[in-house]
Amino acid sequence: MDGHTDSSPSWCLGAPLEQLPTPALTLDQEKMRRNAERMQERCRSLGLRLRPHVKTHKTLEGAELATGGTRRGIVVSTLAEARFFAAGGFDDILYAYPLPASRLEECATLAQRLQAFQVLLDNPQALELLRQRPLPGGKRWLVWLKLDCGNGRAGVSPTDPNSLALARAIAEETPEKVTLVGVYAHCGNTYSCRDVPSIQAIARATTAAVLDFVTALRQAGVPCPQATIGSTPSCSHPVPEMAQLTELHPGNYIFYDLQQSQVGSCQLEDVAIRVLTRVIGHYPHRNQLLVDCGWAALSLHGQNQGPAGCATIEGHPQLRLVGLTQEHGLVEAVGGQMDFERFPLGSLLALIPYHACATAAMHPVYYVHAEGKVVELWRPVRGW
Amino acid sequence: MDGHTDSSPSWCLGAPLEQLPTPALTLDQEKMRRNAERMQERCRSLGLRLRPHVKTHKTLEGAELATGGTRRGIVVSTLAEARFFAAGGFDDILYAYPLPASRLEECATLAQRLQAFQVLLDNPQALELLRQRPLPGGKRWLVWLKLDCGNGRAGVSPTDPNSLALARAIAEETPEKVTLVGVYAHCGNTYSCRDVPSIQAIARATTAAVLDFVTALRQAGVPCPQATIGSTPSCSHPVPEMAQLTELHPGNYIFYDLQQSQVGSCQLEDVAIRVLTRVIGHYPHRNQLLVDCGWAALSLHGQNQGPAGCATIEGHPQLRLVGLTQEHGLVEAVGGQMDFERFPLGSLLALIPYHACATAAMHPVYYVHAEGKVVELWRPVRGW
Repeated sequence: MDGHTDSSPSWCLGAPLEQLPTPALTLDQEKMRRNAERMQERCRSLGLRLRPHVKTHKTLEGAELATGGTRRGIVVSTLAEARFFAAGGFDDILYAYPLPASRLEECATLAQRLQAFQVLLDNPQALELLRQRPLPGGKRWLVWLKLDCGNGRAGVSPTDPNSLALARAIAEETPEKVTLVGVYAHCGNTYSCRDVPSIQAIARATTAAVLDFVTALRQAGVPCPQATIGSTPSCSHPVPEMAQLTELHPGNYIFYDLQQSQVGSCQLEDVAIRVLTRVIGHYPHRNQLLVDCGWAALSLHGQNQGPAGCATIEGHPQLRLVGLTQEHGLVEAVGGQMDFERFPLGSLLALIPYHACATAAMHPVYYVHAEGKVVELWRPVRGW
Repeated sequence: MDGHTDSSPSWCLGAPLEQLPTPALTLDQEKMRRNAERMQERCRSLGLRLRPHVKTHKTLEGAELATGGTRRGIVVSTLAEARFFAAGGFDDILYAYPLPASRLEECATLAQRLQAFQVLLDNPQALELLRQRPLPGGKRWLVWLKLDCGNGRAGVSPTDPNSLALARAIAEETPEKVTLVGVYAHCGNTYSCRDVPSIQAIARATTAAVLDFVTALRQAGVPCPQATIGSTPSCSHPVPEMAQLTELHPGNYIFYDLQQSQVGSCQLEDVAIRVLTRVIGHYPHRNQLLVDCGWAALSLHGQNQGPAGCATIEGHPQLRLVGLTQEHGLVEAVGGQMDFERFPLGSLLALIPYHACATAAMHPVYYVHAEGKVVELWRPVRGW
């Protein structure tokens, strides 16, 4: 990596967290390992394969951890991720994004290179594209059909007869060129929940919709080997019915975040991600502290109820973020006078961000720590 | 730059915009040049120096354009920017951020290396830090005092007697180590305006507050060579009183954005930045299009009134963004039926983002175009 994007000299390795330049995205190694193991254990006990989504962290190390070291079986949402993980030794990569015609050649390159580069589609035109661009050497396109089971983003409706027809077309029309691997649903609608029972109700409904579709397919004589649903909320508290699927594909759970703790996916103490920031100004006439973390290091996610929604300040419930500009954050005392002596210039605060995916997207390097010291530097891929 | 952050192969140079992989941040070269020239002309006619802030674009090319090719006299808000521009041949760099104790050595390195690396402070502790860390070889710290003239972020109040005392201390206490270069105010409060007269009222008040402070200093026998205010709204419609300052330091104006057009800084046709995106899904049962631009390529800035606030869709006032997740955008027809035939899968839409600084922060490369073709690739610095 060239100098100008590298703001993390190697001296940081081994350094105490207190010495890091701020703002800094830090990750608690022990919490990440525990989060990864718990998800692996949930999938094992359900008899399902875990195919982790890597979009939250976008790092080789994070995916290594999430796959339990196998480096096989991940989900990506961009072709930049697909190329990065392929170059990093990963295989069995599902590009779970509506196949874009303009990127077909890039997909073909990956499909030829990897043992199992898999694509996803939700319309007949995309299937036609694959047919018109067969892979050489007898290789077939590995295709998942995207189902929309109530999330309202991409996907075909599992109750629409055209969806069965599309699945059949993928499976049968040109079997020498294209194979139906499975059906894929993302229950992102769980993010609007505020407790575990309502998350589980969505997970149950999504699972039922997916399984009904697969059953109808099989009854029509169409093989559909795989069935997967995902979203960190649903996979953090899986319902028994999910055991009838074949895979789960959550992503955020390695880090978790404030939002996930509010939704009910985790406890606040499970959240592995922080943004470290320092106090850089005292403004007693406004009763405010200034910190060196703005939206450029945090994102504005969670701000619908004001900047206080973007992060909580660990260990200091009496403090809250009240303003975020590009490189500055304003902090106030909740119900009274700021204790400036307690937060001298230079003192370190740890922000627990609302949305880990969005905060991680702002950082060129993540500082992984154990026992108070930096033990690894992770560098994410960016772009498309 | 290594492969995984480079999603812009050189084949893009010379290619028509229609061939770019999406989402793509594009910049209209002609509009940027005109925006840069107009700001230079405004400053010339006021007899002021333009010291452009580079935080919006963070590129060597953008700063070259904004300085009229001199590569001297810029403002940065991070040390990563300072190092990047110093390495790129820029000098006279003002690090206009409350001097952080933890980064003092990095500042000292830059101060020793450059002819004029300048720092800013707003408290006596920061001045003491500089005194305790004198520069070698007879070099002096070049210091600006930050004034808060109503913006309510960093800075001392120009009417507080302690502020005059601090300015005097910078100028006089250890003249062999520290020099007072000038006073600096950012009138970011202009962003809450909705018309030019209210912007100009703030610009007038900020200018008066700064000049009153400088006058009081001079009457007290303290030399204060420079006085500067900034913000793209105030500098896009300067008031005559600003001619009594010495510098202006706007930044966003090279690109402008939807917000600036709403505030009154520019016309929508002056905005040089777009995010190109393609239609990747048709969902007639929801009357929605899916596009391949989510918050990862746009940011959520402007979303206070919903995703429609984050961008306008150029040339299609009947379309609006109604949802943004990481890599997906949902588009609806404003008051009726979506004309799906008009927007087939693969068709290109151009989004005019609400906040150029925030959108630019999401992209590892910017595609600069002229006459419909990519003519330059700009790569911004990131991190801190």
